Amino acid sequence: MQTLKNDRFLKALWRQPVDRTPVWIMRQAGRYLPEYREVRKQAGSFMNLCTNPELACEVTLQPLRRFPLDAAILFSDILTIPDAMGLGLHFVEGEGPKFHRPVRSAAEVKSLPVPDPEDSLAYVMDAVGLIRQRLEGEVPLIGFSGSPWTLATYMVEGGSSKNYGRTKGLLYGDPATAHELLGKLADAVTDYLNAQIARGAQAVQVFDSWGGVLSPETFRDFSLQYMQRIVEGIRPGPDGEPVPIILFSKGCNGHLEALARTGCQALGVDWTISLTEARGRVGDQVALQGNMDPAILLAPRDVVRQEAAKVLESFGHGTGHVFNLGHGITPDVDPEHLGTLVGAVQEMSVEYHRA
Amino acid sequence: MQTLKNDRFLKALWRQPVDRTPVWIMRQAGRYLPEYREVRKQAGSFMNLCTNPELACEVTLQPLRRFPLDAAILFSDILTIPDAMGLGLHFVEGEGPKFHRPVRSAAEVKSLPVPDPEDSLAYVMDAVGLIRQRLEGEVPLIGFSGSPWTLATYMVEGGSSKNYGRTKGLLYGDPATAHELLGKLADAVTDYLNAQIARGAQAVQVFDSWGGVLSPETFRDFSLQYMQRIVEGIRPGPDGEPVPIILFSKGCNGHLEALARTGCQALGVDWTISLTEARGRVGDQVALQGNMDPAILLAPRDVVRQEAAKVLESFGHGTGHVFNLGHGITPDVDPEHLGTLVGAVQEMSVEYHRA
Repeated sequence: MQTLKNDRFLKALWRQPVDRTPVWIMRQAGRYLPEYREVRKQAGSFMNLCTNPELACEVTLQPLRRFPLDAAILFSDILTIPDAMGLGLHFVEGEGPKFHRPVRSAAEVKSLPVPDPEDSLAYVMDAVGLIRQRLEGEVPLIGFSGSPWTLATYMVEGGSSKNYGRTKGLLYGDPATAHELLGKLADAVTDYLNAQIARGAQAVQVFDSWGGVLSPETFRDFSLQYMQRIVEGIRPGPDGEPVPIILFSKGCNGHLEALARTGCQALGVDWTISLTEARGRVGDQVALQGNMDPAILLAPRDVVRQEAAKVLESFGHGTGHVFNLGHGITPDVDPEHLGTLVGAVQEMSVEYHRA
Repeated sequence: MQTLKNDRFLKALWRQPVDRTPVWIMRQAGRYLPEYREVRKQAGSFMNLCTNPELACEVTLQPLRRFPLDAAILFSDILTIPDAMGLGLHFVEGEGPKFHRPVRSAAEVKSLPVPDPEDSLAYVMDAVGLIRQRLEGEVPLIGFSGSPWTLATYMVEGGSSKNYGRTKGLLYGDPATAHELLGKLADAVTDYLNAQIARGAQAVQVFDSWGGVLSPETFRDFSLQYMQRIVEGIRPGPDGEPVPIILFSKGCNGHLEALARTGCQALGVDWTISLTEARGRVGDQVALQGNMDPAILLAPRDVVRQEAAKVLESFGHGTGHVFNLGHGITPDVDPEHLGTLVGAVQEMSVEYHRA
């Protein structure tokens, strides 16, 4: 494989010196881009887009043609694993993801297979390989998965949820079955991320999108514990080099210290805490990724610049910061505003890395 | 007015000794009760139920007939103030609240009136008076309002929202207009709560349901500051006694210290922090109200008891705790499970109040 031309992102994850703060944006390949919407239309459905490696590769590369981003992220969905387990993922317009066969009973959990990623998830692996090839070493490629807890909520609820009543009902009412489900998911996620790494992913991120709906005790037992197991199971890349892992537990600022102790390299941070405080609490155990409120991209461009400056200042001097939003970019953002943001980070971050 | 027969709730808010931990439940008058659904059907619409003092009084009293709760809370909606400002509140089945005339421009904000609660909100005041009369001093009556920030999100978005893009767009893009809107709302909420107090509310709660979507800086400037102004404007009751104020900023555990410094008597706490930690951080500045995950009421009854015990233990010995959920009870709860919870709190909390 090609030598990596821009290793700023990987270096920042390992807290090594960089010339400026690297930047990528969650959901950078997404609906706010007209060229994405064009390919999505061609594909006919969101699932077709995810399962076609050529199209998934194309949309992965689109934002990199527009903006000088420091990383690419695999275009896929977090629910590919439950789909490969046989739950029947589909998308209902305006309602989000749904499963034909939700998992609720102990018997249903017991009969769930742990999928072989090179078999039922081969389309993802093919996309990873193709993206790595087409990237030609310009920037590193990030692989990802949902966290076991987050995947479990969709599998038990049968889709998105407001209160997670069924999943929490299982967790509180039949914790043994909940643990069995989460254990299988931890194994499946570990295999899935290792397969992405084997095909060329140079960093991996675990999205614990719904960790924030749990109490401190249940977060530790039903989400954190399983992410820890994944961190411990991640294998080095094909070159023998260790692959950095980013854990992003949205709405879990109360747990930053515990997340940092899992052995991961970086934590995603949402915008409800200042990076000054987050950095103070995790010290030099991990890098931090974040954390501008995505809604700021809806404000005038001078405000976008000003708020980007605040985020940089809030992390302060030194390495260990990857600039990102605190959540995915929303479809209503004008791409030119993202251009302003990326440019501002490039330009204004240099001073924080002078020796 | 009658002497209050059960002052456990008010005493706990003032952190005075009590014989056991008082308990009430957010949304205790609500859809999980068949007798509520019956009255709601009679009323024809949710708005008819809110605007009819006789019916609002009836549903307020329903949970007290079933459970030995230590407080009643006025049945109403948080959006009565924007409705009285002329926005045209209505409810679309399955979609939640909507406004016919959302407020988005500086001119629209400027022309908003601050309603006289004894005029356009007389139906709420009549309900407060009627409930006080019918309660016959059994338990105290809690009045409430939405926080300025929370009301503003509905007014600007025109209803519920996922990302609060329009409201945050205003906040970041035209902060002067956002402050003008929030200032008017702070005045309106203060007047509204004082009118409820004049008619007999013995404690008031401000629901800052969406404070948790703000960054630390914007929370302080656009939500906290206006709640502070409300706390400062609350007047004593008709008997000349001060009326305790509870602030509940959901998802704002990072701001407990700042909320405690507003001068309020108690903080609502959601279930994503332990009461041990919350109490450690606010010390004896305020009482704490909460904080069981409402989803636990969907688990078997022995689990409900067990989790109630954990919440009591997590606050520990001494006064200053009002037992509640960390958010409203959901419509799918079996009322018998709430009975189990209330009974468990009554029984198990006694030991925490022995001298």
